[in-house]
Amino acid sequence: MSQVTQDPAASGSTGAYPATDRTVPTRSRERASWDRELVHSILDESYMCHLGFVRDGAPVVLPTLYGRVGERLYVHGSTGSRPLRGAGADEGLPVCLTVTLVDGLVLARSAFHHSVNYRSVVVHGTAHQVTDPDERALALDAIVEHVVPGRADDSRRANARELAATAVIRLDLEEVSAKARTGGPGDEPEDVALPYWSGVLPVRHSYGDPVPADDLDPAIAVPGYLGKR
Amino acid sequence: MSQVTQDPAASGSTGAYPATDRTVPTRSRERASWDRELVHSILDESYMCHLGFVRDGAPVVLPTLYGRVGERLYVHGSTGSRPLRGAGADEGLPVCLTVTLVDGLVLARSAFHHSVNYRSVVVHGTAHQVTDPDERALALDAIVEHVVPGRADDSRRANARELAATAVIRLDLEEVSAKARTGGPGDEPEDVALPYWSGVLPVRHSYGDPVPADDLDPAIAVPGYLGKR
Repeated sequence: MSQVTQDPAASGSTGAYPATDRTVPTRSRERASWDRELVHSILDESYMCHLGFVRDGAPVVLPTLYGRVGERLYVHGSTGSRPLRGAGADEGLPVCLTVTLVDGLVLARSAFHHSVNYRSVVVHGTAHQVTDPDERALALDAIVEHVVPGRADDSRRANARELAATAVIRLDLEEVSAKARTGGPGDEPEDVALPYWSGVLPVRHSYGDPVPADDLDPAIAVPGYLGKR
Repeated sequence: MSQVTQDPAASGSTGAYPATDRTVPTRSRERASWDRELVHSILDESYMCHLGFVRDGAPVVLPTLYGRVGERLYVHGSTGSRPLRGAGADEGLPVCLTVTLVDGLVLARSAFHHSVNYRSVVVHGTAHQVTDPDERALALDAIVEHVVPGRADDSRRANARELAATAVIRLDLEEVSAKARTGGPGDEPEDVALPYWSGVLPVRHSYGDPVPADDLDPAIAVPGYLGKR
């Protein structure tokens, strides 16, 4: 049998992102990774990112939802918002998109070795406005599905007026790194005998019971995709 | 009895932050607030911020812990880290520090009106390295206490070698705004009869049972300040 050998880089879904000056950290380098699967898993577990851009020479960081389709991230917003307008220029908008999951608080005997167990992804690149109607529709579905899987088909999709008021920007996953810390505290050997509790306080993210809208028809049950979360 | 009338702005702890070009949003202006108490309550409930700065003309956003002492925020890190080094220059480092708490996912009948209940604070300003030893000690305690109240006195404080390896930067709360969304979905009247569930999925942040370090003396009990969280 013949076999086609895939180039991992060309496949876009295996292997690692290239390390660049911007994606090799100056500190805690042992926590850094460029592994695509790890990057995708962190991006897919969260739905809230912090998007940074430069306005009048100064940094601006805003929280926003995002979706992922393969090697592309999508962010949406009002056509009037400043970063989305900025991404509409031909040259696009240089951005840094960061996603952080906190898994635990690490309490060492020494204040110095206190830390956080976390997983984060930092994406550097240039965001561009998406103008193709099919890609815009795909992106908007991806954002809804990213936050609540199963919801896109169980809601009314945007109409022409709403689409006209919505800007979508795209950021390709090219210059990307993950960073993660796991495990217990890293105390100095001479501190282990100190009389302080030491360990990890796990951080939990969960959902409460769905709260129906005041005007919801009581005959409409909570959908299964909410119960499973 | 005589009474001293305080100037709210001068007291630094009451009233509102001044609205500036950078702290008046272009969209969802009704969600914005400059109220000090609201800003402080959001900053005190979280402990993880996203710090944005500009490097070689491009934005960088990194997650980091912070502490608050009155109208000052403190961030610490390795003396080798790039933003902390940048803040050591005489002119300081222009930053944007953003804190976001997610309270719920808002599911409207229309995809367009899907939203998130959240509270966020955005601080614009210039970060400066703290060199005064007393202020550095105060800041490091504040960061530990911010993450786990009660922990600073129940751990070994930094020694001279650790202090020499730690940079602390300060960001004054001067140009600050909060933004918050609460409540149920805001569907269009013509969408209310659509057959889709609508409401809010509350997001919960909690802690699991503390996990002791492998080398912890079993005689050391879990401290009360962890049990109360």
